[in-house]
Amino acid sequence: MEWGAPGADRVVGMSRFDGRTPEQLRPIAIERGWSKHAEGSVLVSFGDTKVFCTASVTEGVPRWRKGSGEGWVTAEYSMLPRSTNTRGDRESVRGRIGGRTHEISRLIGRSLRAVIDYKALGENTIVLDCDVLQADGGTRTAAITGAYVALADAVAWAQGKKLIKAGRKPLTGSVSAVSVGIVGGVPLLDLAYEEDVKADTDMNVVCTGDGRFVEVQGTAEAEPFARDELNALLDLAVAGCAELTAHQRAALEATL
Amino acid sequence: MEWGAPGADRVVGMSRFDGRTPEQLRPIAIERGWSKHAEGSVLVSFGDTKVFCTASVTEGVPRWRKGSGEGWVTAEYSMLPRSTNTRGDRESVRGRIGGRTHEISRLIGRSLRAVIDYKALGENTIVLDCDVLQADGGTRTAAITGAYVALADAVAWAQGKKLIKAGRKPLTGSVSAVSVGIVGGVPLLDLAYEEDVKADTDMNVVCTGDGRFVEVQGTAEAEPFARDELNALLDLAVAGCAELTAHQRAALEATL
Amino acid sequence: MEWGAPGADRVVGMSRFDGRTPEQLRPIAIERGWSKHAEGSVLVSFGDTKVFCTASVTEGVPRWRKGSGEGWVTAEYSMLPRSTNTRGDRESVRGRIGGRTHEISRLIGRSLRAVIDYKALGENTIVLDCDVLQADGGTRTAAITGAYVALADAVAWAQGKKLIKAGRKPLTGSVSAVSVGIVGGVPLLDLAYEEDVKADTDMNVVCTGDGRFVEVQGTAEAEPFARDELNALLDLAVAGCAELTAHQRAALEATL
Amino acid sequence: MEWGAPGADRVVGMSRFDGRTPEQLRPIAIERGWSKHAEGSVLVSFGDTKVFCTASVTEGVPRWRKGSGEGWVTAEYSMLPRSTNTRGDRESVRGRIGGRTHEISRLIGRSLRAVIDYKALGENTIVLDCDVLQADGGTRTAAITGAYVALADAVAWAQGKKLIKAGRKPLTGSVSAVSVGIVGGVPLLDLAYEEDVKADTDMNVVCTGDGRFVEVQGTAEAEPFARDELNALLDLAVAGCAELTAHQRAALEATL
Amino acid sequence: MEWGAPGADRVVGMSRFDGRTPEQLRPIAIERGWSKHAEGSVLVSFGDTKVFCTASVTEGVPRWRKGSGEGWVTAEYSMLPRSTNTRGDRESVRGRIGGRTHEISRLIGRSLRAVIDYKALGENTIVLDCDVLQADGGTRTAAITGAYVALADAVAWAQGKKLIKAGRKPLTGSVSAVSVGIVGGVPLLDLAYEEDVKADTDMNVVCTGDGRFVEVQGTAEAEPFARDELNALLDLAVAGCAELTAHQRAALEATL
Amino acid sequence: MEWGAPGADRVVGMSRFDGRTPEQLRPIAIERGWSKHAEGSVLVSFGDTKVFCTASVTEGVPRWRKGSGEGWVTAEYSMLPRSTNTRGDRESVRGRIGGRTHEISRLIGRSLRAVIDYKALGENTIVLDCDVLQADGGTRTAAITGAYVALADAVAWAQGKKLIKAGRKPLTGSVSAVSVGIVGGVPLLDLAYEEDVKADTDMNVVCTGDGRFVEVQGTAEAEPFARDELNALLDLAVAGCAELTAHQRAALEATL
Repeated sequence: MEWGAPGADRVVGMSRFDGRTPEQLRPIAIERGWSKHAEGSVLVSFGDTKVFCTASVTEGVPRWRKGSGEGWVTAEYSMLPRSTNTRGDRESVRGRIGGRTHEISRLIGRSLRAVIDYKALGENTIVLDCDVLQADGGTRTAAITGAYVALADAVAWAQGKKLIKAGRKPLTGSVSAVSVGIVGGVPLLDLAYEEDVKADTDMNVVCTGDGRFVEVQGTAEAEPFARDELNALLDLAVAGCAELTAHQRAALEATL
Repeated sequence: MEWGAPGADRVVGMSRFDGRTPEQLRPIAIERGWSKHAEGSVLVSFGDTKVFCTASVTEGVPRWRKGSGEGWVTAEYSMLPRSTNTRGDRESVRGRIGGRTHEISRLIGRSLRAVIDYKALGENTIVLDCDVLQADGGTRTAAITGAYVALADAVAWAQGKKLIKAGRKPLTGSVSAVSVGIVGGVPLLDLAYEEDVKADTDMNVVCTGDGRFVEVQGTAEAEPFARDELNALLDLAVAGCAELTAHQRAALEATL
Repeated sequence: MEWGAPGADRVVGMSRFDGRTPEQLRPIAIERGWSKHAEGSVLVSFGDTKVFCTASVTEGVPRWRKGSGEGWVTAEYSMLPRSTNTRGDRESVRGRIGGRTHEISRLIGRSLRAVIDYKALGENTIVLDCDVLQADGGTRTAAITGAYVALADAVAWAQGKKLIKAGRKPLTGSVSAVSVGIVGGVPLLDLAYEEDVKADTDMNVVCTGDGRFVEVQGTAEAEPFARDELNALLDLAVAGCAELTAHQRAALEATL
Repeated sequence: MEWGAPGADRVVGMSRFDGRTPEQLRPIAIERGWSKHAEGSVLVSFGDTKVFCTASVTEGVPRWRKGSGEGWVTAEYSMLPRSTNTRGDRESVRGRIGGRTHEISRLIGRSLRAVIDYKALGENTIVLDCDVLQADGGTRTAAITGAYVALADAVAWAQGKKLIKAGRKPLTGSVSAVSVGIVGGVPLLDLAYEEDVKADTDMNVVCTGDGRFVEVQGTAEAEPFARDELNALLDLAVAGCAELTAHQRAALEATL
Repeated sequence: MEWGAPGADRVVGMSRFDGRTPEQLRPIAIERGWSKHAEGSVLVSFGDTKVFCTASVTEGVPRWRKGSGEGWVTAEYSMLPRSTNTRGDRESVRGRIGGRTHEISRLIGRSLRAVIDYKALGENTIVLDCDVLQADGGTRTAAITGAYVALADAVAWAQGKKLIKAGRKPLTGSVSAVSVGIVGGVPLLDLAYEEDVKADTDMNVVCTGDGRFVEVQGTAEAEPFARDELNALLDLAVAGCAELTAHQRAALEATL
Repeated sequence: MEWGAPGADRVVGMSRFDGRTPEQLRPIAIERGWSKHAEGSVLVSFGDTKVFCTASVTEGVPRWRKGSGEGWVTAEYSMLPRSTNTRGDRESVRGRIGGRTHEISRLIGRSLRAVIDYKALGENTIVLDCDVLQADGGTRTAAITGAYVALADAVAWAQGKKLIKAGRKPLTGSVSAVSVGIVGGVPLLDLAYEEDVKADTDMNVVCTGDGRFVEVQGTAEAEPFARDELNALLDLAVAGCAELTAHQRAALEATL
């Protein structure tokens, strides 16, 4: 069956390798307070993908921003060597950071900065560290989703410590992210590793809590994709991010 | 005027800083045969952005691919230190490659591999080097567009040298790329540097010659963007890539 | 009161900052099966110090050992950037591994190799990764203690997979480790960070399950120490390691 | 025929592989204004050797020179990966600069500093970047010859911008450079790559416009060389540099 | 014969490969004034192990210590590439310092800092460079022993130059170091390389001149060791360090 | 008095800062057998400049030379951190080799290869390590002069071990090197550091034992130099190298 056939039929009786429907997220867990040291910390799970996110607040900003009255938010992503099925070399041992790590760190940083009001943050820096403890597809989207919650806790901490002026709200919204892809002609939400490797097209979408786009990164892994495929993937992603936004809100409303 | 107002009105009387209309490319030039050594070589210009692309063919493939009967295509992007308005440090001197360079090198490689039939290429490797001689916005899209032409020449060279089996066609199509963005509420094609720094949203789109997508990378630089903004940008990009495809074809049809 | 006075008196009424007696370990937890990918994996806690240890088995040995019929065991230690009270730079970002990291990685590797029969292991390699998720003193001793359990699971896995010849026992014993130190004139077992920074003398001791020494590393942080102080510390350490050995045995006897 | 025999006979009827006489330069081209960003920029060609030279002016000097009232001039040389017949690895990718690159960068910097009056330059820094686009022997001598012209333009720019005090002349003369070598017993000027690899002795000579020496670097590639051979090479080089000086002057006199 | 048998019998008639008794040091030489540049310099020999130690005094301290009124002492250890039987790669060429080098540099620094009164030193820094010219076992212990003498000369120099306030004594004692090990069941002092490679247990001990411990680092190279073995080794080491202390004193009392 | 005036007058009554005449070498010492491990080893002194040179022979050649039947000779130069008046950072600590080190290592290697018959050497590699223990000008020329003697001993060792075929003579001659320069208008031989920093022109000359040139590297440090100045320097250098050749021969004729 070719993709493009009526959607209702398409999914009838279908079941993904783990029993999910195409538009279903994996079990999501967002555990706050996972570190006694960090100003914000979260263990986020998208199924078997587990990422440990900490938010570290420091007074002051990098040199190029000093005196601007504006803050800075940045992120670093890394995978533990045995977070994957086969052990990978440590980047510290190799002495250099790989392209993929660089790319994902930059994506996480940009995504979180999209909901930061630098003026309101004042000359403070928040660093998000996203370390993948176990990988099963979607580590960058889990990282963004978890890092937002750690960031929110860190901002609240800084407000409590009066590092941020009273009445200022550095967070202008929330962000979450999810992967989508076309596997065997069918658009699927939140790909597990087993699906990811088979995908013809793979897309990571970062949305704000109000449903707008912060990042859209689609890649044809095998076949180039058509406009209607792109649209179907965006529909899935927007719905998935809305669900993740609800998970984030619930986590932040819980007592720490 | 808010973006979203009727398009016809929107552009009336408008002129970009360089006199272009919103849907107009900068002057495009694709000069082949720019190196006496490389198997394929192109100097590509998108206005004042100039990228020197060479394609180097070597027999054999990286170790992890040996014995597969399949070839490999990869790319490296770099900016000369004074290709920009302010001199940047050389990455060789700093001893490490920056995240942006890594990210763009990977994008160029993926884009070109999207139109390569590895089996037809056989166990040969083609490396595309894209060195920015002068930057004025859109260096990565110019690099992809130029590198495709260098790649086509290199494939033809390899066919002439019988490195590729008779009758095999390693190229399954063509690729070109262009940037689009929303500046002052108006979607624009092929941003020059001056426009790029003001853009609220910035997107790089890589298309095949038949109008499908290879990569879609949209980033909210300031404000998150809505679905209809995304659609307007994609429309512009698809049209721009079609024009670039025509430039590529014309360049390749010319006698070298 | 000078240290050296009768021990019974010394401790009367004394209580460490966290309520422990001088010869008391912090709460110890050894959780196996903490990764779905690794052949052995443990989350070990010595109080608030938490180290994630994985054991990765690969067939084959490093080049310098090929053809010897003997296996190899090695270890890598690292701290997540915000495992400590103040965020530290990532060694991957700095592009080099620091001296302390090198030193501890080497210590862990040597300690585990002390109970490995290379011949029985055959030409297999086991890499222990010890990543500190949260640090509160004693990260290297927790790492050794946890890594032994991960190693035991990995060896059992390899035996199950017939990578190790039937009847061969690569493990010749067990190892555990604990820190001891003299704080305010009193020898203490298993220092927490708050005690560690105040210690005059700091010692890490690695013992086998049968109470012999694998490593003894004592350092005068402030005052040089005398022979009787050394003896008192060794007494504490040997008793502490015996307790840790019991924890390891209990963890390994539990059903995974 | 041994070298040292009467010169007149020796050259009769001789022609180099490209038709030149022993004392003839390759076609020389010095194109100014090759970059819209740099304060001085030149594409210099010695036959098929093409080097892109930019001069970047910045106010201020390196830390070790601050407060001296004196300026600084330095240079960096690099070859594009496919400037040669076989693609070379990028030094940025390897993470370190090779010895040859270091050596040539230092030579170019010293050569240009030989005609700079630091006091007159004031606390300004000029960096010369010499990137080899295509190599066919003599890249370092072409780089010096072209960089001088870029430097002259940059100095003029700085004078126009009043970065240099009125009446001060930072340039005390001009410099050009050429290679010479003994091939098959015959001293030749301006070796192309094909000749360079066969040379018994290879010498790079940097002269001022008034015919004095700035650098003389002679190397016996195969056989040690005698004093009269050295003299013959120096004669050729001095004459070659005089011609190059005329090319430089003509280029600088042309309207940009 | 097992170790633990009556000591008197054990050694009867025994002779080590070089004719020494078990409790005998190799010939020790400490030559001061080995560099005309350094503020303190020593060539120390433990038999064929020769280490060149220089002490360099600079006014000021590292940034993290500025304004504290306290000084700093640190050390760097390195082996010349052919100091060993087989040439080793230079760490500068490899671009990174190995774990062993790091470990030993840190040990030397800690050992010397154990006898430094930072307040009395004032805001001065002393760097000890210990370069192994020839290695035959015990390079780290020779380095510590020699570096102490260079340090003492450097402190005296600084006192002479009034960098240290009159009446202040930065040195609170002396340090020396020696290796001990169990070879073939017999505890031996000051192992030569030939003995070191055969040792079951290897221990480096750093003592102050008054016989207390600064560092005790024991490692089971083959078999774990028992408490009485540890005690026997410590006895040997303490006696050896006392001898080395006498050598240091004699060297420092000689006229330079 | 300008340089160029009659030489006899010029030197009358002149004395260099250390009492030498312009054409006088510093005291030269070449001590062989300075390492028990290396196949050839020399401590060479040119006055206070002391360089430790070892020659290490290994069977086999680098990969790119395998199967050629030809050997290889290469060199590495380094300065100990406190070989100079002010301590310099270790290149191993900085993680990269500086340009000067690269340049000198390459010069030493080329100089020694000039007297090597690769065919006669057979597939053996000799590495010369030249480590400067104390620097006082002319370290590279001392290194070349000493390294030749170490090389000669290493070749003799390899002949004794039958690594080199009977009757084959890998050494086709000898090499030595010396610095010359114009200081205060006067050409001087073998500059000490104090003279080197004042030199207008500085030249390093490498000669074979029969008086021909292997390398001539002249640099105008301040003023460009004229042809007759160059000639005067070459005259001095040739005479100096002849003296150094005699020292080398005497050293090699002595019983080791």
